[in-house]
Amino acid sequence: MVRFYFDFISPYAYIAWTQIHRVVEARGRTVEPVPVLFAGLLNAHGQKGPAEIPAKRAYLFKDASRKAHALGLPPLQPPPTHPFNPLLALRLCALPMAADTRRRLVDALYAATWAGGDGVESPDAVRAVLERLGLDAPALLAAAAEPAAKAALKANTDGAIAAGVFGVPTAAVGDELFWGVDALPHLDDFLAGRDPLTPEALARWKHIVPSATRT
Amino acid sequence: MVRFYFDFISPYAYIAWTQIHRVVEARGRTVEPVPVLFAGLLNAHGQKGPAEIPAKRAYLFKDASRKAHALGLPPLQPPPTHPFNPLLALRLCALPMAADTRRRLVDALYAATWAGGDGVESPDAVRAVLERLGLDAPALLAAAAEPAAKAALKANTDGAIAAGVFGVPTAAVGDELFWGVDALPHLDDFLAGRDPLTPEALARWKHIVPSATRT
Repeated sequence: MVRFYFDFISPYAYIAWTQIHRVVEARGRTVEPVPVLFAGLLNAHGQKGPAEIPAKRAYLFKDASRKAHALGLPPLQPPPTHPFNPLLALRLCALPMAADTRRRLVDALYAATWAGGDGVESPDAVRAVLERLGLDAPALLAAAAEPAAKAALKANTDGAIAAGVFGVPTAAVGDELFWGVDALPHLDDFLAGRDPLTPEALARWKHIVPSATRT
Repeated sequence: MVRFYFDFISPYAYIAWTQIHRVVEARGRTVEPVPVLFAGLLNAHGQKGPAEIPAKRAYLFKDASRKAHALGLPPLQPPPTHPFNPLLALRLCALPMAADTRRRLVDALYAATWAGGDGVESPDAVRAVLERLGLDAPALLAAAAEPAAKAALKANTDGAIAAGVFGVPTAAVGDELFWGVDALPHLDDFLAGRDPLTPEALARWKHIVPSATRT
């Protein structure tokens, strides 16, 4: 089982979501989607998100668009606003449901965010997505507003932080993390038993200390 | 001409340096190496470096090692300390010299940093690199300590910040930036006239506003 930590806020997480099942299933594993609040990861690690640094914000849409194109995806289209509040969409994805339903739900919410839809911030936009999928929209929206759904998303996010996850998308095989679209080939190598890392190399890095730090 | 902004501190900049000439020269262009102080970029954009976030620091050496392996490079080896003070090495690379000498110098300083050498922080380690290259070590070390060399590195760094560069490695073709090892295929597409971005898509992103921000 490969955990896939994601937030709808990230175009890279969208792109990776469109690829992760193919990569993982080809190696006889399954994907466990884990919705997490990216803002919570940033807070925990004291870092800025890419959209919070103006020069990086301008760049990231170009880069993600190029990556989407290279993978044969439809042209990336920005949501109505960005950054937006993804809590409702994430809490919905954290509700108990069948695996295939959850996969279709994540697919549809990502398409609504980055492939020309109405976004996933407003309850109306989310309701429309649920209805198009033929799901029980009123029941799901009510469940997503319950304390249990809020607690589930918080537990996911806290668990991700404890596992060393600092960004989305991150795929995890046990303790081993693979961050970003460009780590998918490394995940594939790992699942195939071809990871090039050695304990010796990792031990060397672990014991390297700084000789200069920023003030 | 393709500018290549780099700092020895970054293993990704090392990896990209080993690839950039092949990519750029195959498209009939040349590489202009531009040493910059990564810490200066971080300061300007108010962001943390990857080695300053413990979870990311642990990850980045693994990821860079996997990327080096995938490209057929020798196993990545950490320098004696990290982060270290790269000023001497960067100022040396900012001195006036013939293009082929500068290329050999950057090659050798990167090898000393990430391919099993003694690093490039101490004057002794740098002197040994210069001597192995058959360069005039005393003259170069003296020149690198002059105000002109300090000013040249500062001008490079300020110019990078003004151009929107927020990380290393960054390759720039005119105003167009390509950040990271994973952007090299996008640089290649751009140089070949196959960039998929359209002014319409970029205008859409430019006018998207936030509807939620972190407090």
